[in-house]
Amino acid sequence: MSLVELIQQNRVGKIASLFETVEPVDIAGAAADLDDEELSRFEEMLDDPSLAKVIEVSEDRDRMRMVDHLGNHRLLFVFRFMEKDDIVDILGDMTIGRRKALVDLMKSEDRRTITELLRYPEESAGGIMTTRYIALRSTMTATDALEKIRQIGPKTEQIETIYIVDENRRLIGAVDLRDILLAEADEPMAAFMHEHVISIAPEEDQEEAARLVTKYDLNAIPVVSSGRILGIITVDDIIDVIVEEHEEDMMQLAGANVEEDLDTPLTASIKMRLPWLIVNLLTAFLASSVVNLFEDTIAQVVALSAIMTIISGMGGNAGSQTMSIIIRALSKDGVDREEARAQLVKEIFGGAMNGLIIGAITALVVIVVYRNGFLGVIVVLAMVGNMVIGGVAGLLIPVLLKKLGKDPALASSIFLTTVTDTLGFFLLLGLAQAFLPLIR
Amino acid sequence: MSLVELIQQNRVGKIASLFETVEPVDIAGAAADLDDEELSRFEEMLDDPSLAKVIEVSEDRDRMRMVDHLGNHRLLFVFRFMEKDDIVDILGDMTIGRRKALVDLMKSEDRRTITELLRYPEESAGGIMTTRYIALRSTMTATDALEKIRQIGPKTEQIETIYIVDENRRLIGAVDLRDILLAEADEPMAAFMHEHVISIAPEEDQEEAARLVTKYDLNAIPVVSSGRILGIITVDDIIDVIVEEHEEDMMQLAGANVEEDLDTPLTASIKMRLPWLIVNLLTAFLASSVVNLFEDTIAQVVALSAIMTIISGMGGNAGSQTMSIIIRALSKDGVDREEARAQLVKEIFGGAMNGLIIGAITALVVIVVYRNGFLGVIVVLAMVGNMVIGGVAGLLIPVLLKKLGKDPALASSIFLTTVTDTLGFFLLLGLAQAFLPLIR
Repeated sequence: MSLVELIQQNRVGKIASLFETVEPVDIAGAAADLDDEELSRFEEMLDDPSLAKVIEVSEDRDRMRMVDHLGNHRLLFVFRFMEKDDIVDILGDMTIGRRKALVDLMKSEDRRTITELLRYPEESAGGIMTTRYIALRSTMTATDALEKIRQIGPKTEQIETIYIVDENRRLIGAVDLRDILLAEADEPMAAFMHEHVISIAPEEDQEEAARLVTKYDLNAIPVVSSGRILGIITVDDIIDVIVEEHEEDMMQLAGANVEEDLDTPLTASIKMRLPWLIVNLLTAFLASSVVNLFEDTIAQVVALSAIMTIISGMGGNAGSQTMSIIIRALSKDGVDREEARAQLVKEIFGGAMNGLIIGAITALVVIVVYRNGFLGVIVVLAMVGNMVIGGVAGLLIPVLLKKLGKDPALASSIFLTTVTDTLGFFLLLGLAQAFLPLIR
Repeated sequence: MSLVELIQQNRVGKIASLFETVEPVDIAGAAADLDDEELSRFEEMLDDPSLAKVIEVSEDRDRMRMVDHLGNHRLLFVFRFMEKDDIVDILGDMTIGRRKALVDLMKSEDRRTITELLRYPEESAGGIMTTRYIALRSTMTATDALEKIRQIGPKTEQIETIYIVDENRRLIGAVDLRDILLAEADEPMAAFMHEHVISIAPEEDQEEAARLVTKYDLNAIPVVSSGRILGIITVDDIIDVIVEEHEEDMMQLAGANVEEDLDTPLTASIKMRLPWLIVNLLTAFLASSVVNLFEDTIAQVVALSAIMTIISGMGGNAGSQTMSIIIRALSKDGVDREEARAQLVKEIFGGAMNGLIIGAITALVVIVVYRNGFLGVIVVLAMVGNMVIGGVAGLLIPVLLKKLGKDPALASSIFLTTVTDTLGFFLLLGLAQAFLPLIR
């Protein structure tokens, strides 16, 4: 029986027992398809812990819809069963008025933690950390530590790595639970503590946290400010960051809005797509105005209008190849000055070489079709030139964007095609105009 | 002192003590920059466990270089300290001759496991699983379980989730280590076992494993064949899969080779990029031949050569937006027939609407520049047509590729631009030819 049918027939027991056999994320998926009235009734039929679980695993938008249907008091009861970082996410997406009302209703201890967490931007390390982790003193014995882990364990997101702090909550090391299990009863934590703990500052970008966890194969990374541990980021949140950033990159490269999906209504979709199209239109005007400059030349050698799109397009293709390699290198270990210089030389020679090959093939076709050898020579020259330009621009644009503190994936592609279209047209048509008597 | 200097000065002790303060992955990074002779000496200076660690965390290419410098017997000793799945990866990248020689030299038990693992493709769930996990019987008491975990724990990659098997090694459930720690001494595993365990078949793609772990926030997923547990995939390997697939998508969309990076020599780079450029050249010829068909029309209205690149480009941009949304939807929950049909309607109306707006702006500029109202009308019609075409192609191409079992990210973009360039030129120039007397 579907979730809708269960709701319509008021089968409270059935819905409760759903949680034994169906994963919460799948229940959340079904709930996302309910209409407003059904959703309200569904939420009434769930107890607080179950509703908390469903809200936690829902997609951002569905989550806000579920929260909007709850009164402040019910929501506070539901919050009791949720992770602090998830509560902060939800509060962050609310209107300021409601957020303030909710925080004011909280117990003073919760209010302090939540207010603290709300200070960090949503996509920073502090914004995604959880405050539920295990931190012990280095003087604690293995037996005491195990007792403590038994108590706190069920409330924490991971128990394999136990953090060790001094009397001021300064992070001084970490211990593997395996070592505690193997230790003699009265051995202190200090005996098997690793002092070299990789950590991150709360204001750092979440992508940096993901990079560290990926590189060092961690199952959690502590968030540390002036030596004190504030929280940890667990690997499941890191995976969400990686997937999210991946989607953002893909969407941004294509000028699509991360928010748009199959459920987005037509009018919203039109509005989301229009701005990027207008930006592209402006760059298209720029390239087109170059063509306009050479109208007289084209009028005399109409073949140029067919050839010019090949030159501009191939420059763009060559540039995209370079750009994707550079964007990847930037996101991994960065690109230093010396590497950039070496790559520049490679792009110039590589672009020239591939330009010669691609240009020669194109020239051959042009000579066969238009029976003009000089036109072939001009095609080769323009192709070599534009493919070198593509390679160089594909290298420099993302490097410069990164240097300016921008996301290289965001705007690289539109700058690149502007360069290769405009200069591609200019090269071919300029050469054609200069040698007009030979190709007419 | 740098790693090279330590090697040159034969500072064995210093190198050994490096491992106390520097992360293995950073040592591996430094080792990657050594020349062949230095690398050989570096490997001689390390003991087997340290060398195993460095090899395990090296990038694929560096890893093979390190392995190539080792004799078969030393390598077998190093293998003792490595995970089976990593050994299989290394064997899989070797020449068949050396792989066979090594497997023949192994102890019969290892040989069986390794041969078993080598059967699975490198990018399948079976290919990335580890055989080091904890599986207990449901009748075992908490005390016995804890004793077992103490013993096996240090050899396993994760200890939070303990798998429960029956007498035939069939997977029947899972237990959280927290519950074992909290249990009464003589409680059997069955008392707090979850029966609903999400698992994956060994022949499934590694991307499916990543999707399940991401969706259900698992810290490991068991690999199960006809009910029996063969191994587990841990979350750090899942992160590697996600990052790898992400990079592949980005590189493939741009036609770059995943293997190419800043270290790739010039000639290798030229060879890697050329095939994609040639494929693009062929599609460029196709679009260009449409322009060639209408040479007479262009000769009479040269403005068309400037305008046609705007029409083709904007169709491509509109299509890319749709395509990235569809590719994301396909990789998440898939797109069913009904959703595809609804989206098709949206693309047609949305494309027409944005085409009208973008077309109107373009027409305005065209009318001002060329002082011809009819040309403006033709521009609007062609723009609406090509943006609808872009939206529809952006939807259908990835959906069809997926249906044919191909990766939608791989070849979508080149098909899309072929369609929008060719039909964009055809629309504008065809309309211009039909109404030539009005715009001349």
